Amino acid sequence: MQVAGPGLTAIVNVGDDVELHGLHISPDLDTITYTVAGAIDPERGWGLSGETWHAMEALARYPQARAWFNLGDRDLATHLYRTDRLRAGATLSEVSAEIAEAWELGMRLLPVTDDRLQTRLTVTGEGEIGFQEYFVQRHHEVVVESIRFDGADVSAPAPLVLDALADARRVVIAPSNPLVSIDPVLAVPGLRDAVVARRVDGVAVSPIVAGAALKGPADRLLRELGHEASVVGIARLYAPLVATLVIDEADAQHAGAVEAEGLRCVVAPTIMTGPVEARALAEVVLA
Amino acid sequence: MQVAGPGLTAIVNVGDDVELHGLHISPDLDTITYTVAGAIDPERGWGLSGETWHAMEALARYPQARAWFNLGDRDLATHLYRTDRLRAGATLSEVSAEIAEAWELGMRLLPVTDDRLQTRLTVTGEGEIGFQEYFVQRHHEVVVESIRFDGADVSAPAPLVLDALADARRVVIAPSNPLVSIDPVLAVPGLRDAVVARRVDGVAVSPIVAGAALKGPADRLLRELGHEASVVGIARLYAPLVATLVIDEADAQHAGAVEAEGLRCVVAPTIMTGPVEARALAEVVLA
Repeated sequence: MQVAGPGLTAIVNVGDDVELHGLHISPDLDTITYTVAGAIDPERGWGLSGETWHAMEALARYPQARAWFNLGDRDLATHLYRTDRLRAGATLSEVSAEIAEAWELGMRLLPVTDDRLQTRLTVTGEGEIGFQEYFVQRHHEVVVESIRFDGADVSAPAPLVLDALADARRVVIAPSNPLVSIDPVLAVPGLRDAVVARRVDGVAVSPIVAGAALKGPADRLLRELGHEASVVGIARLYAPLVATLVIDEADAQHAGAVEAEGLRCVVAPTIMTGPVEARALAEVVLA
Repeated sequence: MQVAGPGLTAIVNVGDDVELHGLHISPDLDTITYTVAGAIDPERGWGLSGETWHAMEALARYPQARAWFNLGDRDLATHLYRTDRLRAGATLSEVSAEIAEAWELGMRLLPVTDDRLQTRLTVTGEGEIGFQEYFVQRHHEVVVESIRFDGADVSAPAPLVLDALADARRVVIAPSNPLVSIDPVLAVPGLRDAVVARRVDGVAVSPIVAGAALKGPADRLLRELGHEASVVGIARLYAPLVATLVIDEADAQHAGAVEAEGLRCVVAPTIMTGPVEARALAEVVLA
């Protein structure tokens, strides 16, 4: 979820955060950091470009090592730093601000909450597992029956989050997975109301293009959990939150059906294959 | 402290252990592992040979990072593994056995205790600091007024430690720093008595050669804490524990003074410049 104001503020999901090997890992915060810094590996879509894997390779020596979550050597520094600062008493939003500054992002990076919020998925035949166990360890190739956000009910928005939503010129829901990337943000008490209050200035970009997710399991998850994996399904989910939905040109024929759900529909190229396409989409969203 | 039995068992100091960046680091256990495995960097005397430092270099990006304790990329794997296993409920001795097996050490590696035992030093003008803060961060270039082993009084010997001492053919006190490497081992309840009980089969190798430590601050620490930085000073410290002290040929003229302290004195080359010298010294110690 991105809020464009005097500057840009990203309000980021922490439900994917995982503690591994004693380290606090915040994949969504890091992916945004590395992407905005131009340091992300463009092929993988996560981690740093030019990364080395010496620590992970050495970890393979230990038979009982949990080595399913790949941590690059330079990426490890971010986890070491975050973990150290959290243990010294800093909040996740304080550490995120320090990391954003260190990478000279020129924007504000806010975890939606400083409290513990964990996305948990009930998987057929297995019971409940954590998000990274689902996403990375099982390559999201399992049937999900339900999703919950453990800790959300007793969490509070991180400082500046509600102010950022209130003050933004435009509130943008990025083309992320609605069920595991956007919903955990909205599950923090006060967040959904704050987004609804800005509905008229709210714009979402559909993560579903021509009935499929560009990457990840959003389409499959939507179907498994009783939604329609289409721009119309997205329109139904987001109609209470935003006044406008941007859909890809590939879905132009569904514009009427989207508007029937009660939102304005904008058709534009939404596939961000590079910075030029990303900038063009941002201009559509801000227009 | 090494106990040669049917096989070889090392009973290892854990007072230097430190938690950094959320990782449990056991420098003495790791140095023995890497040394016995032939993987240690011979120049530095710690860490792995052929190591890379990408994580540490990347950590320097973060201004508030505590980067004074160098962690090589491959070495990090050992800390990640140990931390993960400890958090999963394994004891330090269980993890140490797993690490020894993974490195095919062909010997037993026992932390003296599975409990928390921390070497703390009172430094002039600063107050009390941890061992690594003293040794690495301040390069042991400060005046030490006293040393204590926090937690030792309520610690218990790890499984097999007392049995190893009771069953060994010979009990060897390695040429380590008596005050910060051997004393914390002896501070665990039951350890000193178990060593004293085997005094007749006990051999120590003097860490002081010609009035100086081969490396590290042993000589300075001995003087600061009221001991003599000489083989005679070592003899006084170890006379209650072992029947024999091996001193270097450079100290041959002190053999009589050593024996006057109540131990048998063996003069031999004790400087282990390589595996050949180390093996020769081991043969002297076992003879």
